[in-house]
This record gives sequence, C-alpha cells and structure tokens, in this order.
Amino acid sequence: MGRPRRPLLDRERITTTALEIVDEQGEFSVPQIARRLGVQTASIYHHVDGRDGIVELLRERVASAIETETLDLEPWDRGMAAWARSYRAAFAAHPRTIPLLTTSPVRAPKVLDQYERAVGRLLEAGFALADVMPVIIALENLVLGSALDLAAPEAMWELADETATPRLARALGAVPEGRADQAFELALTGYLTYVRALLGEDDPAGAAPADGDRARDTAPTP
Amino acid sequence: MGRPRRPLLDRERITTTALEIVDEQGEFSVPQIARRLGVQTASIYHHVDGRDGIVELLRERVASAIETETLDLEPWDRGMAAWARSYRAAFAAHPRTIPLLTTSPVRAPKVLDQYERAVGRLLEAGFALADVMPVIIALENLVLGSALDLAAPEAMWELADETATPRLARALGAVPEGRADQAFELALTGYLTYVRALLGEDDPAGAAPADGDRARDTAPTP
Repeated sequence: MGRPRRPLLDRERITTTALEIVDEQGEFSVPQIARRLGVQTASIYHHVDGRDGIVELLRERVASAIETETLDLEPWDRGMAAWARSYRAAFAAHPRTIPLLTTSPVRAPKVLDQYERAVGRLLEAGFALADVMPVIIALENLVLGSALDLAAPEAMWELADETATPRLARALGAVPEGRADQAFELALTGYLTYVRALLGEDDPAGAAPADGDRARDTAPTP
Repeated sequence: MGRPRRPLLDRERITTTALEIVDEQGEFSVPQIARRLGVQTASIYHHVDGRDGIVELLRERVASAIETETLDLEPWDRGMAAWARSYRAAFAAHPRTIPLLTTSPVRAPKVLDQYERAVGRLLEAGFALADVMPVIIALENLVLGSALDLAAPEAMWELADETATPRLARALGAVPEGRADQAFELALTGYLTYVRALLGEDDPAGAAPADGDRARDTAPTP
C-alpha cells in the first residue's frame, strides 16, 4: 500500500477544522475537531499544545491575513490607520473568533511579533512608553467592534411601527449604503486625530479626563 | 390539586435560561433551552416568536442594564459618554452575547426606544440628520470592542521569551493596572472630542476622509 502524500493529521488541518467549527458555532471542542477529521481525540493532542494551543493556532491563522507591512507606511498615523483597516478586514472574515480570542491571552509568536512592530512604530513616533499599550488597545477595541459591525446585516434596525420611534426612522432613512465602513472611518479618524494631538504633550494619554474637558483645549497638531 | 403560583414556563424563564446557555457556550438552540427547563421544545414556541424572538428577548434583557437616563445629562457629550460607559458595563457582564446580538437586526421595542432617545439627543445637539446614525454606530463599535476587552484577562500578553519582543516587553511593563478602563476612556475621549468638533461644520461626518488629512486641519471647538 502506498503511503499517503500528506499526513492525515497536521496542525494546518486541525486549525482549518477548528476555524470552520468556530465560524459555525462560536465555540469549539477538541472532540468536535476529532469527530470531523475522523480521528481519535487523543490523536489531536499529539499535534497541538492542548485546547489553548488550538486557540493560539486560530489567532495566528486569522491574524495572518493582517497586512503587517502597513505599519511601515509614512507618516506613522497613516501606517496605524492602514493597519487598523487590514486588522478589521481579517477579523470581519471570522467575527465569531473575536470573543474567543479576546478572552484568552496572546501567546502565538507571530502575533506577538506584530505587536512588537506596532509598539516600535509608536515609540519611534515619540509616544511615551506608558502610553503605547493604551493607544494600541484602544485602537484594537475600535477595530474589533467595527469588525463585528461589518458582519452585521445592512438593515440593522427593523421598525415594526415607525411612528413609535419617529426620529430613529428619519435618521435611518438618511443613512447611506455602507454605513459600517462610514462609522468605522469616523471612529478611526476621530481616534487618530486625538491620539496625534497627544504627542508632544506633557500628560500621558492615561491622564486624559473621562469627560473630555481637557481635550476641548487640545488642538490637533498639524 | 393546587395550581402552581407561577407558570412553569414564561418568557422571563426562557430568557434567563437562554442567557445562561449563551454565557457558557456563545450560542443557544431552542431544544437546549427546552432540555434545561425540562419541557418539550414545542412548548417553548408557545411563548416566544421563534428563535429570533428569543434573540430579541436576550437583547432586551442585556440592554435593560443600560442607564438610559444618562442620555439626558448636560451637555450632550457628557450624556453620550455616560451612556457609553453604562452600555459597556451592561455588555461586559455578558460578552458572549455580543456577536450574537450584533449579527441580528434590532427589533425589541425597548431597545429601539433607547436608540430613539439617543437620536433625539444628537439632533437636539445640532447634528445633521445624515450624521446621527454614523455617530451612534461608531460609538457602539468602540463600546462593544471595549466590552470584550473588559472580559479579557488582565495579563493579555504572555511572552515566553521577552528577548524576542523586547519593545513589547518594555511597553507591557509600563502598563498600569486597569488597562482596559484606561484604553476605553482614551478611545471614548478621543472620539467624542472629534465628534464635538464636527458640530457646526459644513461637511457631514461621513465626508471625513479615510486618511484623516482633513482632520488635521480641524481644531476642536471649545
């Protein structure tokens, strides 16, 4: 009997199957993967570092669609914006991985490399060390929230009775097509405008007051 | 035989059970709810408008924790900030409902009422009709992304080898406790500062260029 050209089981196939299951169900289990691949559950564990290892393979797979080289664009904020758009597109293709990946610590080396690059870019741009992670995390929140919205129906509000919510009905009537992209670009532009203005100030980003009073006195630097 | 004081099955109990299942598994099915309540699946359908009806009951339940009266605070942007914080807290308590609810159209009357109030508040503040929904949607993206982050581990990045990502290691070392709150407030302040600046301008928010060039020339109004 000839030996099969490729092994029945490898990390690639386990990852692909786990991603299929998460796309369908929002969750996965190792026995589910085994059933779908027609192997014993124990065999899966020979290839991966437990369930957590599979979560990291999923993170690496989804994040591999992010165009990391965008981070090198000039100037730095154009780079961050392009990275954010590519990041959003990668996760919008697999929105149900988002809650799974955001509730588990990042360990995948390739994904940590991507953070290393983003951190480096912000440090080079002049951000204080203590501001760098908050700036990245806030951008990710906006990106992942928008990725979920990109997976939402275009007609997100269904009014059975327009007279019950007349102003909402009017506002919805004024929404152009592509509302998800429009809202994402609004949040992204707004956020980066503000963050740009933080550069060169004395206060760290974290000291920005919650009600934005200080922000009112802060003109973006050209 | 005495009649039971409360029915074995009602919408409240169905909603509570569906929420438990989604909190655990990220998804639910009507037969799962029936099994957990010890009733026939068909009995569930006597009380709710199908699976979609249960999704709307879940939306109403989670959104009921949002303090809608915050929208009446003065000035309008303080109201929006307080609403956003309360909205984030409500969804952070049930993060796994987020992808379920964001991929299904909003029909629950109480939730539509909340949008009606937010739309009214922005119209009164002077926003153009076409800008109102983008402003709300972008805020929601930021809120929901941050709600997921609030459900994340405090130590979100685990570096097996700090020398592989030295700048990330330094940036993480500089992150104070409560990084999720800090990042949320940064994004919220940044966004509202920008949106405030849009008031009284000629261009609609949706016309803001993607690369933020126009934003550089836009000083926030005091």
